[in-house]
Amino acid sequence: MTIEGRNGNHDRPIRLGMVGGGKDAFIGAVHRIAARLDGCFELVAGALSSTPEKAVESGQALGLAEDRIYSSFEDMAKREARLKNGIEAVAIVTPNHVHYPAAKAFLKRGIHVICDKPLTSTLADARKLAKVVGESSALFFLTHNYTGYPMVRQARELVASGAIGKVRLVQVEYVQDWLTVEQHNKQAEWRTDPKRSGLGGATGDIGTHAYNLACFVSGLAAESLAADLQSFVPGRQVDDNGHVLLRFEGGARGMLWCSQVAPGNENALKLRVYGEKGGLEWHQENPNYLHVSPFGEPTRIITRGGAGMSAGVAPTTRIPAGHPEGYLEGFANIYKEAAGVIRAHRGGDGLASLVPGIEEGLAGVQFVDACVRSSSRNAAWVKM
Amino acid sequence: MTIEGRNGNHDRPIRLGMVGGGKDAFIGAVHRIAARLDGCFELVAGALSSTPEKAVESGQALGLAEDRIYSSFEDMAKREARLKNGIEAVAIVTPNHVHYPAAKAFLKRGIHVICDKPLTSTLADARKLAKVVGESSALFFLTHNYTGYPMVRQARELVASGAIGKVRLVQVEYVQDWLTVEQHNKQAEWRTDPKRSGLGGATGDIGTHAYNLACFVSGLAAESLAADLQSFVPGRQVDDNGHVLLRFEGGARGMLWCSQVAPGNENALKLRVYGEKGGLEWHQENPNYLHVSPFGEPTRIITRGGAGMSAGVAPTTRIPAGHPEGYLEGFANIYKEAAGVIRAHRGGDGLASLVPGIEEGLAGVQFVDACVRSSSRNAAWVKM
Amino acid sequence: MTIEGRNGNHDRPIRLGMVGGGKDAFIGAVHRIAARLDGCFELVAGALSSTPEKAVESGQALGLAEDRIYSSFEDMAKREARLKNGIEAVAIVTPNHVHYPAAKAFLKRGIHVICDKPLTSTLADARKLAKVVGESSALFFLTHNYTGYPMVRQARELVASGAIGKVRLVQVEYVQDWLTVEQHNKQAEWRTDPKRSGLGGATGDIGTHAYNLACFVSGLAAESLAADLQSFVPGRQVDDNGHVLLRFEGGARGMLWCSQVAPGNENALKLRVYGEKGGLEWHQENPNYLHVSPFGEPTRIITRGGAGMSAGVAPTTRIPAGHPEGYLEGFANIYKEAAGVIRAHRGGDGLASLVPGIEEGLAGVQFVDACVRSSSRNAAWVKM
Amino acid sequence: MTIEGRNGNHDRPIRLGMVGGGKDAFIGAVHRIAARLDGCFELVAGALSSTPEKAVESGQALGLAEDRIYSSFEDMAKREARLKNGIEAVAIVTPNHVHYPAAKAFLKRGIHVICDKPLTSTLADARKLAKVVGESSALFFLTHNYTGYPMVRQARELVASGAIGKVRLVQVEYVQDWLTVEQHNKQAEWRTDPKRSGLGGATGDIGTHAYNLACFVSGLAAESLAADLQSFVPGRQVDDNGHVLLRFEGGARGMLWCSQVAPGNENALKLRVYGEKGGLEWHQENPNYLHVSPFGEPTRIITRGGAGMSAGVAPTTRIPAGHPEGYLEGFANIYKEAAGVIRAHRGGDGLASLVPGIEEGLAGVQFVDACVRSSSRNAAWVKM
Repeated sequence: MTIEGRNGNHDRPIRLGMVGGGKDAFIGAVHRIAARLDGCFELVAGALSSTPEKAVESGQALGLAEDRIYSSFEDMAKREARLKNGIEAVAIVTPNHVHYPAAKAFLKRGIHVICDKPLTSTLADARKLAKVVGESSALFFLTHNYTGYPMVRQARELVASGAIGKVRLVQVEYVQDWLTVEQHNKQAEWRTDPKRSGLGGATGDIGTHAYNLACFVSGLAAESLAADLQSFVPGRQVDDNGHVLLRFEGGARGMLWCSQVAPGNENALKLRVYGEKGGLEWHQENPNYLHVSPFGEPTRIITRGGAGMSAGVAPTTRIPAGHPEGYLEGFANIYKEAAGVIRAHRGGDGLASLVPGIEEGLAGVQFVDACVRSSSRNAAWVKM
Repeated sequence: MTIEGRNGNHDRPIRLGMVGGGKDAFIGAVHRIAARLDGCFELVAGALSSTPEKAVESGQALGLAEDRIYSSFEDMAKREARLKNGIEAVAIVTPNHVHYPAAKAFLKRGIHVICDKPLTSTLADARKLAKVVGESSALFFLTHNYTGYPMVRQARELVASGAIGKVRLVQVEYVQDWLTVEQHNKQAEWRTDPKRSGLGGATGDIGTHAYNLACFVSGLAAESLAADLQSFVPGRQVDDNGHVLLRFEGGARGMLWCSQVAPGNENALKLRVYGEKGGLEWHQENPNYLHVSPFGEPTRIITRGGAGMSAGVAPTTRIPAGHPEGYLEGFANIYKEAAGVIRAHRGGDGLASLVPGIEEGLAGVQFVDACVRSSSRNAAWVKM
Repeated sequence: MTIEGRNGNHDRPIRLGMVGGGKDAFIGAVHRIAARLDGCFELVAGALSSTPEKAVESGQALGLAEDRIYSSFEDMAKREARLKNGIEAVAIVTPNHVHYPAAKAFLKRGIHVICDKPLTSTLADARKLAKVVGESSALFFLTHNYTGYPMVRQARELVASGAIGKVRLVQVEYVQDWLTVEQHNKQAEWRTDPKRSGLGGATGDIGTHAYNLACFVSGLAAESLAADLQSFVPGRQVDDNGHVLLRFEGGARGMLWCSQVAPGNENALKLRVYGEKGGLEWHQENPNYLHVSPFGEPTRIITRGGAGMSAGVAPTTRIPAGHPEGYLEGFANIYKEAAGVIRAHRGGDGLASLVPGIEEGLAGVQFVDACVRSSSRNAAWVKM
Repeated sequence: MTIEGRNGNHDRPIRLGMVGGGKDAFIGAVHRIAARLDGCFELVAGALSSTPEKAVESGQALGLAEDRIYSSFEDMAKREARLKNGIEAVAIVTPNHVHYPAAKAFLKRGIHVICDKPLTSTLADARKLAKVVGESSALFFLTHNYTGYPMVRQARELVASGAIGKVRLVQVEYVQDWLTVEQHNKQAEWRTDPKRSGLGGATGDIGTHAYNLACFVSGLAAESLAADLQSFVPGRQVDDNGHVLLRFEGGARGMLWCSQVAPGNENALKLRVYGEKGGLEWHQENPNYLHVSPFGEPTRIITRGGAGMSAGVAPTTRIPAGHPEGYLEGFANIYKEAAGVIRAHRGGDGLASLVPGIEEGLAGVQFVDACVRSSSRNAAWVKM
């Protein structure tokens, strides 16, 4: 074991701000733990809620200094950019429709952005944001956190190395059940409101993760898709189930299923990739194992930290095999790697990393847009 | 435990003949074991191969009397129909294209038919056979054997009882890997030859099982489907992978994936059904368990023979919980139930049973036909 | 696939009788199915119950000829031995205390015996029976059926081949829950009655299976053991739980746990063997898989009928990988192999087989005796 | 979700020091991440190694101020106790033989101690430390971290509530394979050196965890045990495998198996508890699930954060069901709860918590001592 988090780097933690993530939020706390886990970031400012009282209350609960608690991200961006020790990066963990304006406010002022997915609530916003990122001196990261799991990295490396041969099939599914009936909590409300969530429901919220994961591991992008989206719960304005056929560049085919109305499934993200020489399978809910099946040989169980794991994957694990890592550790890998890129950037250097960014974000919104377009035309094939 | 097989019935075993199933065949041996397992049938005649030497050799190996070994099913049908103690039923276990003529030969002579799936190699044959069955005094059974598994029966009963509410989603997959590369054994040869197998490859061989299982458990039939079929192995004349979107009567949706080129999958038939109130999941490769998830409650594991199994399902199991039953026992349930229907028929009575017959067979060939039609039109929706 | 059961042998089925196994019995039906499954035996006579009416009723239900239905095994042994086409072998499936007198009656008359386990209800009987077997011209087989599972054979072969190195540890458990509370059915009554079952309860009924399996796979025998037996249910006269420490010849150590009072366990027989170079694990309730772990390498999943299975194991499977076999098929392997030995014996030849016999039976009763002796001395070490 | 970690408490983080945990250590990094994960502690001082250069280098890597980096715990204890903002608590993560002197140095100066397990390397030290704790105004916590897993808490609560009835059986095992062959890394060296590790090898290193977990969940303590310990690897001075029979107060019985020489097992800690009315089962390597089996009903799968989890367990989880938590989160629960107790203590209040302390530590060393005593007397029963 090395000293965790710092990678032998004596650098001080990166000063981080946060937009969204106040009381009753879910993903904000996840980002904070992920940022803190390896000691690479220090949360020093926040516009944690658009409701001023809640913003203050939440900032105090997190121990922020009074004068670094903001009730608008605009104010935060302006003031922090001028402070001598202002934030160097900001985590954006708001509902989707705020991603674009918030990210823009910080990127224009040279503050790095770590943004939750999907990139934006509309394709128009996504394209505008891509333009902003291209013109900014600051960095942009998107937390498609499932790519941070060590065994997902292992799967990607195996495919890239040719271990399973040319890819033929990519089967991915991301299945939940929490929206099986109408829900009235805060999470359900904005995630099923097309104004805040975007046109996609399940497709946007979890389908984008599934699509990103499929591409990340297979190394392929879809050229076209055919989607049959449903809203099973009466009155729901966005899809709560999506059945999608995929055609990838180079001839591979795939299926993607995303659902939030499948009782018994909590957060069942599962990927299977098959090539001419072998197959592999990974389940997010028991993420420390990767099943690899060379054709004609017994299936092998590669374990995180154990025999069969590649050297290149090792930096993404913290503890020995058999001591399970989970969702937060995978998420923290995104933050740790983003920290490495930010630190290199300080010195004027670029650093290759696997952290998703604007391209993956744009691809995700294009995926949702294509699903909605296809479904509105009776699941006709549409170009991505 | 009761005395097995006889159900308290002192009746002598039913005299059975077999068409196909000689040396190097696979499914013939399965039918013979299934027929024998509960003591309900006695194999007394066979046209086990269209090659006369092989027919004789195979018949002798099975201990058939010399004069009950035939080299053509026509001869067998004619002669057995005239014998005083001729066969009462025949099992047809040939390649698909022989199903229709063979079944016709026996049905016309009042001999019951137990036929392997798919029903026929063409839709035209299927329709003709349906007509023959309708006009015959004899019975027709189709070995969609997976419906014989006790936990499949349990699943069907739970859905029918409303335990999971109105069905919304049916996800079924049947995945193998044996055709990942080109194969030159007898099984591979006829199963990938459209003249003998029919236009469907994986769709016909295993997709029909998957579709039948989905309908059997959900109680629904598909109204339309969209299929994207592939032949990944160069030179292969039939599909070896099928991605299918399903729309069921009443609004339920589904996905069906059948593949014979997915390394690491042996015979991975898996069904998941989700309704407004709950979900259930069953895997053929570990068939003694059924996962049932009432929405908002912990998942229950119902076990074959154990707590939670319904009384109506009990007759399909032979041994106590924890003593696993498998493929052959499920298959034998089809034979045992067919025997019950045949025995009632002897006395002029009808007997309700869940054994698939001509309707399910026709639906299966329609499924293949629809898949091929849809795929040839770029996965357009087609009516079943 | 070859023609099943006959192994290319045109021999007629072996004529079989049965002692015990009438209505309300459990294991008798299992033996009959196992005998019938491969077509190697034909049941022609029975003393199925010591209650004459039940003997007749059960014999009729099974289709036996009236004059081959007996109400005492003595009568059956005497008469069948004189018949021209009398039984060649008998299956003994009574409560344990009848095994010795019944086996003796047939062995003395040259009729082969296939006996359920444990061998006898007392060690004295076991020794006497061993003597009888030694003096008989007939063969003796004991249905430690779990040794018939293909993946158990595979495990044994791997250990014997040195694949896991010198064995250090053998961990075996056989856990059920059906006796968690007092039961009043026939099975529970005789199995908890020391007069019929023997001094051991769980140790005799299932501990003997576990011990046999451990020895079969590891190739080792225990030299001594220390056992802490319990009767948790008030009033129970035999143990319902056994905790046993084992010391094997050559220095290996082990633990054996047998219980019939562990809720949630149906028939959870599980074996793990660890050597200097690797380990392996097998579960009876999902028996088609064997996990093999070479030290320092990923675990492999060897599947019945699939890649990694040895050629020597193949004759014990009937159907392809992914089509699960279960308890009855494993049990039928014992019958099929016994048939092979009996047929060779007809011709005056011996045939090596892995079917357990008198030695394994004697070892099982010694195991129970040692457990009871040790437990009565506060779990002191006792020699086997 | 609430704001994580602070529980609505605006208190500043607790100032933490660390003894041990420098480069090449394993558990030190785990403690640091656990302390940091919820933001309850701030690491400000360290005596990270007894080698001065390594102490400095490690302290710098962790960003400690130069004057808070010590090369002896004595110096650290003395100086920090005098500093105005000196450490309030210290984590002791050294080899076992240092636990006692280090803990004593801090406790005597009123600094709270969070100590890794086992408590000490000898029973004499354990007793002396218990005396020191009793006389100190400061608090003492022991990181039997597996008790921090939410589903372990759930199991404990179910047992305590009577859900499985009076406990009859406790089966626990903790199995690894990393010492299957002789190892020469730092971790292996001190853990197999009786001077540093104590008389127990596997029993001390992991057996104590298993014993603690068994007691924590069952609510029982062992009265006596019989242990058969082995050192399979030639030259090893401590046990690498332990087979232990347990007799608990009130009549329950158990088995404990700890091993570090079982290939294929990474960190396989598994607990099963059975009572008169039901059973439960938990595996550390997939820790988000608890199987609960009421006798006569189907097994339920209770999931962390999901349906069936008790309200009292909720504070130990951070993220929704299906988003797996792992080893670090369970470990962090110990730190988070210790922080709560420390904060209440600041205000002069006591706070009940489930964090293990001196009693559990003493019980663990007594367990090792009893195992060694029993094994040296041929596995005779010894009192705990």
